[in-house]
Amino acid sequence: MRFDVLTLFPDMVEDYFKYSILKRAVEVNVIEVNTINPRDYALNKHKKVDDTPYGGGAGMVLMPQPYVDAYESIEKNENSLTVMLSPQGTPLNDQLVNDLTRYNQIILMCGHYEGFDERIREIIKPKEISIGDFVLTGGELPALCLIDAVSRKLEGTLGKIESAQNDSFSDGLLEYPQYTKPRDFRGFKVPEVLLNGNHKEIEEFRNSQRFIRTKIRRPDLLN
Amino acid sequence: MRFDVLTLFPDMVEDYFKYSILKRAVEVNVIEVNTINPRDYALNKHKKVDDTPYGGGAGMVLMPQPYVDAYESIEKNENSLTVMLSPQGTPLNDQLVNDLTRYNQIILMCGHYEGFDERIREIIKPKEISIGDFVLTGGELPALCLIDAVSRKLEGTLGKIESAQNDSFSDGLLEYPQYTKPRDFRGFKVPEVLLNGNHKEIEEFRNSQRFIRTKIRRPDLLN
Repeated sequence: MRFDVLTLFPDMVEDYFKYSILKRAVEVNVIEVNTINPRDYALNKHKKVDDTPYGGGAGMVLMPQPYVDAYESIEKNENSLTVMLSPQGTPLNDQLVNDLTRYNQIILMCGHYEGFDERIREIIKPKEISIGDFVLTGGELPALCLIDAVSRKLEGTLGKIESAQNDSFSDGLLEYPQYTKPRDFRGFKVPEVLLNGNHKEIEEFRNSQRFIRTKIRRPDLLN
Repeated sequence: MRFDVLTLFPDMVEDYFKYSILKRAVEVNVIEVNTINPRDYALNKHKKVDDTPYGGGAGMVLMPQPYVDAYESIEKNENSLTVMLSPQGTPLNDQLVNDLTRYNQIILMCGHYEGFDERIREIIKPKEISIGDFVLTGGELPALCLIDAVSRKLEGTLGKIESAQNDSFSDGLLEYPQYTKPRDFRGFKVPEVLLNGNHKEIEEFRNSQRFIRTKIRRPDLLN
């Protein structure tokens, strides 16, 4: 899977792949991440990418020329999707993440400042995706969330493919509680059922815990 | 506002503050970000922080000892909140972000691998917050989203405090479309109303656009 990220802060995106599990996903070629900086495509003298909004108001707006030209410089393959990260988009969820794993290339448009000149939307017509009903200083963290969520579902990213299969949301429920060593930590003990080796009982315990937890914390998911 | 981030990947968190608007927020002391690595608190010989789950299953689970000891090493001030980033938590939204701005210190617990030993929850009793119904390889990106969303609401982070006031969600609606130079880009023109200098008409145009956009894209927000 190839990710092309349009960003004014390429280091912010690239640094993330120096660490952790996704570093390995890059090394074994499960994913490839490129960055494209619209500033490099600005035709004005000072490489300006933003200007004040028409009609007044605080903040700066990303100009169409550098952004659209940068976008058009990206080579698209036959199974490519363009995504704008925006609080105005479709909320990202596990189902949407699954849908995104079917593409070979995802182009991610990160905004900054007060956002995009509307004509960038009109010309590029991206799918707009939001990671939640809150506002950030830029689209880089949402882009990284999307790349991370999609990448961990691709075979070869996690050590064993099964680790993604019991996740929260994988079947609409939250995950069951997990326990590891020691059996007793400050008097807090691992539930007996997990120690007795009876796989049927363990499965029943975990399934009931998933249901109870979802019912208490996120009853909306049960509908 | 002070953020203390418990993470196995401190560089991943620290690197984010080398860039962009939040770099400035750190420089002018609006926010302070510290990292604490549970690995430094592991008492076992190999500084191990995770182990296999009791009851079987793929993946590794964070052990209680290194994490709880690391947590307890953090000096808490009188107006402190502890947050665990988890897909099982309360979904983060603009209202919750506003609530979080009232603390002086937020301690952020990032997980990794298959998640936390349940006793870490039982002992620390954090507020659990989710950034969305999807799963990531770790809690660092959600922690950064939370820090970013909270920080940009603090006076002194953005150039002008007003830039946060017309955001999406600030009054329950999505943001209006923005336009900047040039007036005509490839035949796509800035709406006339934004160029005529009539503030009342501009405000009416923007308000109606916010309503229309919200109704089309996120009718759930209008309830």
